[in-house]
Amino acid sequence: MSKILVQKFGGTSVRDKDTRASAAGHIKDAIDEGYKVVVVVSAMGRFPDPYSTDALLQLVGFPHSQISKREQDLLLSCGETISSVVFSNELKEAGIHSISLTGAQAGFITSGDFTEAKIKEMNPERVKKELEMYDVVVVAGFQGKTEDGEITTIGRGGSDTSAAALGAGLGAEYIDIFTDVEGIMTADPRVVETARILDVVTYSEICNLAYQGAKVIHPRAVEIAMQAKVPIRVRSTHTKDTGTLVTSSRESAKGKDIPDRLVTGIAHISDITQVRVNTNKEPYRLHSEVFKAMAAAGISVDFINISPTGVVYTIPERFTDQAVELLERMDYEPIITKDCAKVSLVGAGMTGVPGVTAKIVQTLTDAGVHILQSADSHTTIWVLIHQEDLVPAVNALHNTFELDIQQD
Amino acid sequence: MSKILVQKFGGTSVRDKDTRASAAGHIKDAIDEGYKVVVVVSAMGRFPDPYSTDALLQLVGFPHSQISKREQDLLLSCGETISSVVFSNELKEAGIHSISLTGAQAGFITSGDFTEAKIKEMNPERVKKELEMYDVVVVAGFQGKTEDGEITTIGRGGSDTSAAALGAGLGAEYIDIFTDVEGIMTADPRVVETARILDVVTYSEICNLAYQGAKVIHPRAVEIAMQAKVPIRVRSTHTKDTGTLVTSSRESAKGKDIPDRLVTGIAHISDITQVRVNTNKEPYRLHSEVFKAMAAAGISVDFINISPTGVVYTIPERFTDQAVELLERMDYEPIITKDCAKVSLVGAGMTGVPGVTAKIVQTLTDAGVHILQSADSHTTIWVLIHQEDLVPAVNALHNTFELDIQQD
Repeated sequence: MSKILVQKFGGTSVRDKDTRASAAGHIKDAIDEGYKVVVVVSAMGRFPDPYSTDALLQLVGFPHSQISKREQDLLLSCGETISSVVFSNELKEAGIHSISLTGAQAGFITSGDFTEAKIKEMNPERVKKELEMYDVVVVAGFQGKTEDGEITTIGRGGSDTSAAALGAGLGAEYIDIFTDVEGIMTADPRVVETARILDVVTYSEICNLAYQGAKVIHPRAVEIAMQAKVPIRVRSTHTKDTGTLVTSSRESAKGKDIPDRLVTGIAHISDITQVRVNTNKEPYRLHSEVFKAMAAAGISVDFINISPTGVVYTIPERFTDQAVELLERMDYEPIITKDCAKVSLVGAGMTGVPGVTAKIVQTLTDAGVHILQSADSHTTIWVLIHQEDLVPAVNALHNTFELDIQQD
Repeated sequence: MSKILVQKFGGTSVRDKDTRASAAGHIKDAIDEGYKVVVVVSAMGRFPDPYSTDALLQLVGFPHSQISKREQDLLLSCGETISSVVFSNELKEAGIHSISLTGAQAGFITSGDFTEAKIKEMNPERVKKELEMYDVVVVAGFQGKTEDGEITTIGRGGSDTSAAALGAGLGAEYIDIFTDVEGIMTADPRVVETARILDVVTYSEICNLAYQGAKVIHPRAVEIAMQAKVPIRVRSTHTKDTGTLVTSSRESAKGKDIPDRLVTGIAHISDITQVRVNTNKEPYRLHSEVFKAMAAAGISVDFINISPTGVVYTIPERFTDQAVELLERMDYEPIITKDCAKVSLVGAGMTGVPGVTAKIVQTLTDAGVHILQSADSHTTIWVLIHQEDLVPAVNALHNTFELDIQQD
């Protein structure tokens, strides 16, 4: 059996003949390198492209649709199926021996939780069989079926997750996630001019970076690849570079070293509101009441600091008015700080190393940035700051940890 | 279990919100009459409507596509699936309790002859189960799956055949085929001004009328309904009339009598070429050579009259040059008569009745129409005439057999 590569192309990469031809170029390169290629595609394009997910949703009246989740899945699955057939056909026209499969045909057995089905089983036998006959198998991403034959879509991570599960099931050499960017960056280049592409990151680093807004690859896909020990490459459709390698450790990064660095990258999220609720009564009742109310209203809370005199937490800014109303109705007097940003410093290398937080505090103080809150796990340190301090703060931290310097 | 009605709506009937609202009106009426309704839909609209069959085919480069038949079926199945979800959703919005199913989910097991798969089994259990919960089950027509899970489309008759198979499998009271016309007519109203809608026809009559160009319902669907003894109603989407009832005999036409008539309707096909090949050598070799050559070239032949001195037959006019070339290459000298039309007089009542052909010949002779060829079966008589004689011929026959007069 030849070595196998899984390559995932998102909606914008398969939008039209030109972008599909670019994608086909990457597949052709992989075949020339001796790979059999399993391609995972999303639906073609973005609204108003007629076969995109959002265009299909609009057919049934989204965002005000009464459609059942079961039928929503049945409808949306057509987007990826059409994409896989069209792309496979164009590969054939380009002289590449290809076949397309639905998610169900490719072996994805899921739970019956429509719109967010879980992959219960990825049976790679059919794909393996087709790879004996074909150089490329194009699989419709984001979908599977239940044991009862119901068509489902897998919520978390969509086609990224399909690609990771196929990579894991097939024992692929790499899972290539093609994107509009050239790889994972040390920071958002719109914020930090000297931000650069990372050669190598660990699975846990990219997860924290992605959760914090990098949006390049879904954490669920990373988890699946990590468990199966299949490395991911985050690559650009526009270049021949192999992008950022995502792997478990320095040792497993073939030909690329993960350097000894404390911080790998910095991510941030804006448009956050800090909520402070004090009480001189019973604090436990406050904690319980406040978070129950937030949960009941569907307001996601983060950055929770509980203390005997009250609680501090953050919410997405758009929920501010609603949260205030809820709290006042319970006779609390919330102190609101709007226009905050959360900065995350991520680095597998900081685990067990003392003084990292001190270095961050010193850097931000020197830059005149006020820290509103902080928190940390073994690979990530978070600070909440005023939105207006975001650019100086991230740049100062980027400099302090020398992220602009190629260390590897 | 309530009584069941199957209602089939073609592409133009589900093209847009307005036409779907009309279709929903018919379904609502059926529910009000106490029916559970199984709806079969085709893909929405016609090219360039993006979810129509032809638009999907154009995505893969039709008519010059290299796509495999398997993938063509996978692609086209999405057209009917999207249609079924969208229609079911709009039924729900109109307050009708509805669910949609793919052909596979509805129980269609087919052969693996992609693009022209045969229905091997129609297992109605799932549909029956859903009808316990829902008033309407919307099924994607034209499709099924093989025992191996390959998605197929059933060639012959498409959604008509799906509807008939569901009607047969469910023991439906009627199979309603909704069309743009108000029913089966005694003749083409563009040719005969006094043509009128038939109240009742037999299965075999409609088959002969359809084969001869009526194009209202596919003969394969009629055969399935006939075998299951489920009556069909050919109805207009634009009126509340029940259209033409298609059944086996007078006795089974509840409330409607099939009158004692010799001829039920007259159909015709134009653009036919008559080919005559004479030989003074061995006639058997001629027959064998000529029809082998036509078959190898994919030219369909009809109206074959074999004689010791040669053979006469008809072909579609567009194949004339090709046929002549083939015959001349074999050293025959074909005599060609272009611009012919074939007129079919269909009537279950003519079986065993003498003198019908004589009456036809007399009528056409009186009208100055030259008969080029004739043939007959027990329920149909065919005559080949010059195209220019078509209007007077069909009108004269329509008068002779009093088809303009409501006999029932």
